Amino acid sequence: MKRIFFLLLLGLLAGHSIAQQDLFNENPIISPEINGDHTVTFRIKAPEAHSVSVTGSLDGDNAFANITYDMVKDNEGIWTFTTPVLPPEFYRYTFLVDGVRTVDPSNAFAIRDVANISNIFLIDGGKADLYKVNDVLHGTVTYRWYDSPGNGKIRRLTVYTPPGYEKDNVKYPVLYLLHGVGWDETAWTGSGRAAEILDNLIAQKKAKPMIVVMPNGNVSQEAAPGEGAAGFVKPTFMLPHTMDGKFEETFGDILNFVDQNYRTINSKESRAIAGLSMGGFHTANIALNYPNTFDYIGLFSSALGVRAMNNVSSPMYENMDAKLMQQKDNGYQLYWMGMGVDDMEMIYQGNADFRKKMDSIGMKYTYVETSGGHTWNNWRDYLTAFSQLIFK
Amino acid sequence: MKRIFFLLLLGLLAGHSIAQQDLFNENPIISPEINGDHTVTFRIKAPEAHSVSVTGSLDGDNAFANITYDMVKDNEGIWTFTTPVLPPEFYRYTFLVDGVRTVDPSNAFAIRDVANISNIFLIDGGKADLYKVNDVLHGTVTYRWYDSPGNGKIRRLTVYTPPGYEKDNVKYPVLYLLHGVGWDETAWTGSGRAAEILDNLIAQKKAKPMIVVMPNGNVSQEAAPGEGAAGFVKPTFMLPHTMDGKFEETFGDILNFVDQNYRTINSKESRAIAGLSMGGFHTANIALNYPNTFDYIGLFSSALGVRAMNNVSSPMYENMDAKLMQQKDNGYQLYWMGMGVDDMEMIYQGNADFRKKMDSIGMKYTYVETSGGHTWNNWRDYLTAFSQLIFK
Repeated sequence: MKRIFFLLLLGLLAGHSIAQQDLFNENPIISPEINGDHTVTFRIKAPEAHSVSVTGSLDGDNAFANITYDMVKDNEGIWTFTTPVLPPEFYRYTFLVDGVRTVDPSNAFAIRDVANISNIFLIDGGKADLYKVNDVLHGTVTYRWYDSPGNGKIRRLTVYTPPGYEKDNVKYPVLYLLHGVGWDETAWTGSGRAAEILDNLIAQKKAKPMIVVMPNGNVSQEAAPGEGAAGFVKPTFMLPHTMDGKFEETFGDILNFVDQNYRTINSKESRAIAGLSMGGFHTANIALNYPNTFDYIGLFSSALGVRAMNNVSSPMYENMDAKLMQQKDNGYQLYWMGMGVDDMEMIYQGNADFRKKMDSIGMKYTYVETSGGHTWNNWRDYLTAFSQLIFK
Repeated sequence: MKRIFFLLLLGLLAGHSIAQQDLFNENPIISPEINGDHTVTFRIKAPEAHSVSVTGSLDGDNAFANITYDMVKDNEGIWTFTTPVLPPEFYRYTFLVDGVRTVDPSNAFAIRDVANISNIFLIDGGKADLYKVNDVLHGTVTYRWYDSPGNGKIRRLTVYTPPGYEKDNVKYPVLYLLHGVGWDETAWTGSGRAAEILDNLIAQKKAKPMIVVMPNGNVSQEAAPGEGAAGFVKPTFMLPHTMDGKFEETFGDILNFVDQNYRTINSKESRAIAGLSMGGFHTANIALNYPNTFDYIGLFSSALGVRAMNNVSSPMYENMDAKLMQQKDNGYQLYWMGMGVDDMEMIYQGNADFRKKMDSIGMKYTYVETSGGHTWNNWRDYLTAFSQLIFK
């Protein structure tokens, strides 16, 4: 082995690798540039384009709405736009170049959210510091496969175990955290930033150390698109058997797997369930159909207006009033509901109707209404709030 | 909770979610379309563009080279190109729309490879069936954090445990699998398809069940870009302390962590190490500096021409000839080297020189020369070959 000049090597290796695989992005443009005042400058070189815009969760006033800004071209064909001051948040955006949706070629970070790929960035400070990987002890994120006899499938789920789990021989409480329609078992650790939120709240002693189980709520899938034997199948909004009672009916397979494979405290007091949108609908139904199983229930922008297709009959959706009364009589520690004022009317009203029903039978709940709508911004907030209230 | 018409709900929810979050990709264009004859049709709607091409690992003859094809526009502004017949392989591509690099807006699947995001697809059959998630038992992929006192950091690594590990109380051999310069602990489970390859070879009883540990070889990083406290920092080709001996010097922290946290067979006969490019350089050095630790050594397109920067001095790079002789005398089961004929000259020649040195002292090795160059296509092949030869 002979010594060589290192810089020479770097040049050769980089040049050659680009030719062979096109991996090293040598694009010198900086985008997004997060400025000191928390404005953000986007740049893209597109000399031949007639119009370029940036679109995403970029509204400086409330950071909730999806908003599109026109960009301006300079002499070198570089299009630029600087946002208003953005509040601390985890953001998502893409460019539209003459109407063609494209990720930012200067930003290596993107996320698949249902069927679209968007770039991401983070403005730190405030609540967004919970969404960062900070210099704290980290839990472990695992992709596991479990046997679901009820679905005749080996299925995939995501598990967060708290820092120290592998060594301490302590038993932990469990939060089951469910995704919305179109998503899968990768949603809460992706856009949801669940691992970061839990790491940070546990480090600050604001949340109890807990196991978080994030299953796939689409029972016709064995795993997220691209992660199962179905291959790279385009994610769709609604799959067969997605809201027909089958997920609720076979949830026991998940409970059994988790209690048999993790050091859980196997009791109602140490079990919580929460979900967003369709996952909130699942949560409400599972809590009703598995009596005395969960002491903490969280509905995040829950799709309560939906019960089932008209032609669906499932034991899961029968005798709901009697089950609700039974749930009340059995008791629980917390029934928590989060809702954005700008959510879609059906969702908002479905929750209002459900609260009215709970009121009518004297069933206690905590209701938190926030700004914004049916967005991850709210769901991260709701997880942050809910996870600090449970197992205490 | 009242019943509603489900299709109505779907329409409302989908429309509203697009407005609120732009998640559900309603683009009706199908791309890529994998045709029955294993040609692939790409499509993108860009009515205002002057020229559109598709670029990627799309050469029908050898599937290795990066190749660019011009696309043709139809009356509706949809650009199309159909490839020659492509051999079974895991492929990567992007579009160039008037020179702007963009992912395919119709393909939800993409991967970050160093600093670029590319779409992916797979042509099945033959060896590529090993890269698919098949209907076999699956191992578990875990992102763990380990204490590295030698680097003064808590660092992240990826661990694959074989199917059944969580339940069977069996001790397993360990393969340490290292990435190349610019990559990180997500490379082998990403472009490398290591979990799929191992799942499939274990299911076919062609590889022994084993633990695979995939560390981050850039000691100045605690974790992959975006996964550590440094945040969403653009990946760069070469970081401080990346090839100065520090990774090799502190590799004992990883060995200790793995033997203390997993049911390993803690012996030379049950330990293998392999790596690609820089990871092959690391592999060769670690095998030399940790005598009698590894019985199986794999160099994949190893960057052996590089030893260190001229101004670097590390005990790891001293007395190399004596260490090599010691390694020969200590003995080992397999010293395996894979190399593509079209790899860059420096890498190719560095390996030829090293083999000459081994020959000169009568040190045995297996050398496999393949077509292609410094690409993932080869590294997946080399992992497939090497993992079937070890622990037997």
